[in-house]
Formats: sequence, structure tokens, C-alpha cells
Amino acid sequence: MDVAAFVEANKGAFFADLKEWLAIPSISGDPARADDVRRSAEWLANYLRGLGFPTVEVWETGGLPSVFAEWPAADPEAPSVVVYGHHDVQPVEPLEEWDTDPFVATEKGDRLYGRGTSDDKGQVFFHTLGVRAAMAAAGTDAPPVTIKLLVEGEEESGSAHFPDLLREHRDRLACDAVIISDTTMWAADVPSMCTGMRGMAEAELSLYGPDTDLHSGSFGGAVPNPLHALVSMLAALHDDDGRVTLPGFYDGVIPLTDRERELFAKLPFDEEQWLRTAGNSGAAYGEKGYSTLERIWARPTAEINGMWGGHIGPGGKTIVPREAHAKVSFRLVAGQEPERVHEAFRAWVAEHTPEGVRAEVTIPGGGVRACFSPIDSPGVLAGRRAMERAFGTEVLFTREGGSGPEADLADILQAPLVFVAVGLNDDRIHAPNEKVEMPLLLKGAEAAAYLWEELATALKADAR
Amino acid sequence: MDVAAFVEANKGAFFADLKEWLAIPSISGDPARADDVRRSAEWLANYLRGLGFPTVEVWETGGLPSVFAEWPAADPEAPSVVVYGHHDVQPVEPLEEWDTDPFVATEKGDRLYGRGTSDDKGQVFFHTLGVRAAMAAAGTDAPPVTIKLLVEGEEESGSAHFPDLLREHRDRLACDAVIISDTTMWAADVPSMCTGMRGMAEAELSLYGPDTDLHSGSFGGAVPNPLHALVSMLAALHDDDGRVTLPGFYDGVIPLTDRERELFAKLPFDEEQWLRTAGNSGAAYGEKGYSTLERIWARPTAEINGMWGGHIGPGGKTIVPREAHAKVSFRLVAGQEPERVHEAFRAWVAEHTPEGVRAEVTIPGGGVRACFSPIDSPGVLAGRRAMERAFGTEVLFTREGGSGPEADLADILQAPLVFVAVGLNDDRIHAPNEKVEMPLLLKGAEAAAYLWEELATALKADAR
Repeated sequence: MDVAAFVEANKGAFFADLKEWLAIPSISGDPARADDVRRSAEWLANYLRGLGFPTVEVWETGGLPSVFAEWPAADPEAPSVVVYGHHDVQPVEPLEEWDTDPFVATEKGDRLYGRGTSDDKGQVFFHTLGVRAAMAAAGTDAPPVTIKLLVEGEEESGSAHFPDLLREHRDRLACDAVIISDTTMWAADVPSMCTGMRGMAEAELSLYGPDTDLHSGSFGGAVPNPLHALVSMLAALHDDDGRVTLPGFYDGVIPLTDRERELFAKLPFDEEQWLRTAGNSGAAYGEKGYSTLERIWARPTAEINGMWGGHIGPGGKTIVPREAHAKVSFRLVAGQEPERVHEAFRAWVAEHTPEGVRAEVTIPGGGVRACFSPIDSPGVLAGRRAMERAFGTEVLFTREGGSGPEADLADILQAPLVFVAVGLNDDRIHAPNEKVEMPLLLKGAEAAAYLWEELATALKADAR
Repeated sequence: MDVAAFVEANKGAFFADLKEWLAIPSISGDPARADDVRRSAEWLANYLRGLGFPTVEVWETGGLPSVFAEWPAADPEAPSVVVYGHHDVQPVEPLEEWDTDPFVATEKGDRLYGRGTSDDKGQVFFHTLGVRAAMAAAGTDAPPVTIKLLVEGEEESGSAHFPDLLREHRDRLACDAVIISDTTMWAADVPSMCTGMRGMAEAELSLYGPDTDLHSGSFGGAVPNPLHALVSMLAALHDDDGRVTLPGFYDGVIPLTDRERELFAKLPFDEEQWLRTAGNSGAAYGEKGYSTLERIWARPTAEINGMWGGHIGPGGKTIVPREAHAKVSFRLVAGQEPERVHEAFRAWVAEHTPEGVRAEVTIPGGGVRACFSPIDSPGVLAGRRAMERAFGTEVLFTREGGSGPEADLADILQAPLVFVAVGLNDDRIHAPNEKVEMPLLLKGAEAAAYLWEELATALKADAR
């Protein structure tokens, strides 16, 4: 029985089991649901034991538990692969906007509605079918690579304990690649793989002038106004081409290859439609020389997220204000280090602060490194072959503009990321009426089944 | 008996009477004190009747009353002069910081402490002694000009009803000059006259981008950010020389004459000391080519008074915000019209708003015109001669950076302003322990006495 036939033969049980898991309201952001998240972990652990995973453990953290399951390859020299997903889900409010109970997974045509169907229980679950299909098709009782499933329980509430968990279990999680199944494809008929996620650096800038608000009649026009200093400085943070002016900001940035740009350009992108999803933004605008998709996926940015100072209540108050503030964040791409961006920002502020104004820069955290897998890397090529075998068509590439715990996985486990996922952007994750396309979950299971033999070959060849 | 001797001979009664008036807590900003403000008006009206003013009336407004008193010149062809002051006072909080009861005027050496001693009852009161001294010295029972005292009751709470009062009584207030006795001299040993006050135009600018805050990972760097638009626009509101870039902003501005700059430069100005009063501002900064005093007195400005948008609470929120706002005000000088500045700002915003951003400009009111009396105008020259006769030394010139009801007096009565006042900047008006220098009040009375004959000559000559 080949992979496709196995998936087809087992799909009834697959969806029945998935619905049982989806019924557990594992909302990690709601303290009242902590027991449900634990129940979800136990349910998954039991299910994986039932499938035959030789090792299944619930890993406690300072918060809510992750599930770890390992199925070693028959060949002790075979590569190891971590598969990442999460079993916690988003809150469901506003409940009245759901057409069905969010925790009673409901089929309508090809769609399965319910919280977690796409993000991320459904996508974790296709691996359980995939690994069985792979072994059934090969007639073996072990996969061609050692599979280490790691299913987090706090992704939707910020993954606060995940980096520590990775560091604690670094040895047991040692691997040659990390498969991420928590993203989307371009469209149901345009299968694609994510190859990178932007990182982040954040800073808060405060400027201080007089030690009290001054009457602008008595002093206006003769002393520095911190708001003037703020607008002058922040206006100079971009040049006329929309490029960030921090010295060294672009040093080390891995440029888009011609091949990547060519493949991005193959995606059927409707900019007018995209602008509508962008809050009806009035125009596409950004760094010169790049398309919208290139800008949000592959180019670093500086963004003012908030700004305040002086009189912000109703009515007028004609003052020279004592202080001005801005929150700034930088989206980073591969090759940039958050710490270096923080330092560059501090230096830039020191250099650009006008006389008579005092500046303070606060860095709220260490930032997040971007993650990136070149499209010609062995893992990505193997993933793409697996996806193309499942979908029977060319698989294109995307990236994501923001990032979750993926950068930690890559950094702490020191392994390349390969994104294999079948969610869609219209799955309404984090919103009422979340759904998944059931045929895509089955394609995901197929792709996952092919993935192990493709990776076994690619990573072994790579290691040689 | 000459003027100086008359003043000297009557100073005891003068201060005794003044103290009686000062005992009335005529705080116009405190609704609970409305009756006291009315009592203050009645007290003054009775006092002026007692002095012999042929006409004394309490003029009701939509709020608190003004006092009007007229003493016609003997010569029906003589010029008429309005004398402006106010009988209401500032609140006295924090009471615990007063060394004496604010409403028990208390002498300490040459100083008289109490609310209203300098601002403005004391300065109104020196005119009562001055007019009697003038007539006593001339041996007449009428002044050489028709004197029209107008003593407002709402100056400290915004003069809301004053323009209407002026318009209502425009005929009876018809005059050839308006004497303002509600300002300060440079120093006790550097007598000076104010010759202008800056006006004002205000605007609020709102910029709108996406119709909701956007995730900066998904959209950052590819759609316009209203905060970026705001900083770019407002940074461009000044050029590198600190000049305002609104087209036509400086059209019609009456330039400082060499003589004015020369006289300003004679004032003993300690910039370090001034910066300390400017909230310990770190540097003098403003339009190139002008001194600090010139900048705050005689040059128009644009000032950002407040600015806000995006996430301004604690912590980070990596968004492209939907909107950005700024409150901007312009200090105006003679020759500028608030309406034209409003229009210029609207046009400038329309021209500078980037694509994809929508701008709204709100103009909260009609603004305030600057007031200005050239130093070589007949009224100012007459006032200066009167001051120089009283003080026995050269009188210099200042201006004020902000403005009160003076612009309305000049505009509605269509008469030049002449500032004759003897307050000092260290009188702590609006603060605890307000005081006045008693010898300066007596010099004020002397100057007021000389003023009428100086004005009679100057204005008659001017009319010819």
C-alpha cells in the first residue's frame, strides 16, 4: 500500500481522533484553562504511545507542558529530525461570532471548523498519520530518520519557558534539521514553503529638554523643544529611498538571490487585495527597489510603534514640553544581530541628539534573531521534493514577516529549519470560525510521509 | 506743589487705600469668589467717585464686571486715552508657601507683599495718584487729556467676555491711545517699556493610515506609517536655520529696526541666568541671526506643543499604528494675520502629506493678532518721556513673548498701545509671596502724572 492509499484508507479514523483532541480547550493564555492544557498534553502523549512511539514524555516547564516523543530510525547512523508544533490554542472570544462551537470540531464540506484545527493541532496531527504512512509504504517498523516530535504548550501565550526547555533538553533534542509545521502555504492551489522569518530589535527613545513644561510665549523659539528634536531625529531614521540610516544596519544582511526573487514573483499576488487586508492602507510604500512581498519578508525595517510628549489632552496648551518619547522596533533579517542593532541605535542617538537635549535609550530585551533557510539548502530541497510529490505541482517559496519560537529552535539546537505546513492565510487562526481544509491536512500527511526518506537521503549526503 | 512732591506728600494715604482694596480676594478663576470680584469692582468704583471722576460705572459682562471711569479734559478738542488694567487676581494656592496672608498686604522694607500688589491692583492704583498729582501740579481740575479708565474683572481667567465688552462700548471707549499698565520693566534700575506682544495661531494635525493598527511583522516596511509621516512633515516645518518653512509665513513681518536691536542689546541680559529660568534648558536655540531676546520678543515661531500616536503605554507593541496627532502653535508678530497662517498651514499639510496617508487639520479658534507699537511712534515717545522724567534715566524697550487682551484693545478700539508699567519680573505674580516695590509704584504715579501732558502734546501734534 503506497503512502497516498494509506492516508486515504485511514482518514476517517484520523479526523475522528483529531476531533477528540480538538475538544480539549487548551487555551494557554487563560489561567483558568491550565488544566485543559495539561489534559491536552496527556491526551497527545497517550495517543502517540498508542501509535507505537517508543519514547513519549510530558516535559514540564515553569509554565505549561510540552510533549516529547521519539521514534528512532533503524539505522543508528541515520539523521535525526525535530518536528515542532504546539498543542495550545488561542482564546475564542468573541464567542457570539462563531457559527459553531469552537470546541466541537464540525465538518462543512471539505472544511473542519474549530479552534486549533489549523493552528496548530491539525498540523501537528498530520505528522502522526504521515509517519505511519511512511512505515506502512516501506514495510518497516521504524522511520528512515530518527523523529523527535516536540509539541509546545505555550506558543499562543509567548513561549516564555520554551528557550529554557530547549536548553535543558539540548542533548536529547540534538538533530540535523528542525521541521516546523505551524505556518501557511500561499494558497490551496499554490503550495509553498516558508524559508525565513524576520527577527526583531526594540528600543525606546526618551528626550529631555527643560526640567518643566515652559510657557511657549515666554520661551518658545529660544530653547530646544524635545518634540522638535524627536521629529528631526526620527525623520532622519530613513533616507529618501526608505532605507534605514543606522550606520552598519545592512552589514551582513543576506541579500535575496535572483532565484528567490524569481520564485517570489511567481506567486499570484494581488496588491490591491493585499492593501485591503492591510487595514485598507492607501498605498504600498517602502524601501525602493523591492516588491511588497520582498519588503515584508526579506528586508529589514525600522518602525515607530508609538510616540508621545507634551500636551495630548483636549484643547490647547501652548508649551515647550519637557520631554518626548518614542517606541521604535526593527524587523531584522538573516545576517543581522539584535545586539548590534541595539548598539547602532544607541550610537546613532548619541550622535544625532541636538545640543541642549538629553537622550535616554532603553532596550527592553535581547531581541529575536531572524531565521532563514536558503532555498538551495539540503533540508529545504528535501522538504520541497516531499511537498511536490504530495501536491503534484511546483512548490514555491514564501517567508514570514514576524517570528515566534522558531529562531530559538534554530539558534539553540543549531540546526537548519525546514517549514512544512499546509495552513492557509484565510484559515482565520486567532479569530472566530477558525478552519482547516481537510484535503490539505491529508496532503500534509502525505508530504510528511515522503519527507523522512527525502531527508534521510539529503542529510546523509550533506553530511558526507 | 510739583508732581514729585504731591506723590511724596500723599503716599501714606495711597498705600493705606491700596491695602484696603488688596484685602478683597477678587480671584476671578474661582467661582466661589465671584462675589468678591464684584465687591472689588464696587470698591474701586466708589474710590474713583471719591477722587472726583465725573463718570464712574460698573460694567456688567456675561461674567464678572469691569469698572469704567471717565475724567474729561477741559479742552473738548483734547485727545482721549484709555487706561487698561484689571482688578481681579490669581488664585493663591499653595497657601502654605506664603510667608504672609495673601490678602493682608504687608510691608517689609520697601516691599509690599500680597496677592494683586503687582498684578494688577497696585499698577491700576498708581494712576489714581498720578492723575491727582498731574492736576495738583498744573493747578487745574481737569486733566489735559480725557482719561478713560477701564479696569477688567476677568483678565486672570482668560478675558472671555472682554472683546464683547469692548465692542459693546466701542463708542464710549473711543480714544487716541491705550495705556497698558499690566506689564513689567526690565529691572528696578533699568526702567523700560514694552512695545509689543506676540500673537498666536493654533492648529491640530491628525494623520490617518490603515483603518486599524497593523502587525508590524506582517505589514511593517510595506505600508505608510502615519507616525513616520508625522515626523517627516514636522521635521520639515523648520529649515536648518530654524526658520519656519510655511510658504508666506514671514510675508509682512515688520522687521526689527537697527535702533530697536541696539536698544535691546543695551539691556543687561545674562543668558546663563535666563536659561536657568527656562527650566534649566541646556542651550539657547532658535532662528539663526537673532539674539535670545529678539527670538522671544520679535520673531514668529512654530512650536509642537504635543504629539501622540500608536502604542504609548508600558511595554512593547510592534504595530504600524492607524493614526498620529500633533498640536502645533505659532507665535506671531506684527504684520502676520492668524487666518493667513492657518491657511498656509492647511496648504502646507495638503502639499506635504505622503501618499497613502490622510491628513486632517483642525483650527481651534481664530487666533490672536500680535500687538506692536513702533518705538518712534508719538504715543511711545510720550510715554518714554514721562517715564524718563519720573526715573531720571534712559528708558529702554522690551517686548513680551505672549499676549493677553491687549491685542483686542488695539484691534477693536483701533488705537495704538503704550505700555507704562512698573512691575518687575521677580514680583512673583501668579505665585506665592507676590510683592511690589513700593518706590516703583510711586515712580509709576509720577510717570502717569507726566504722561497726560506728554500725550496731550504728542497726540495733538500727531493729529495735525
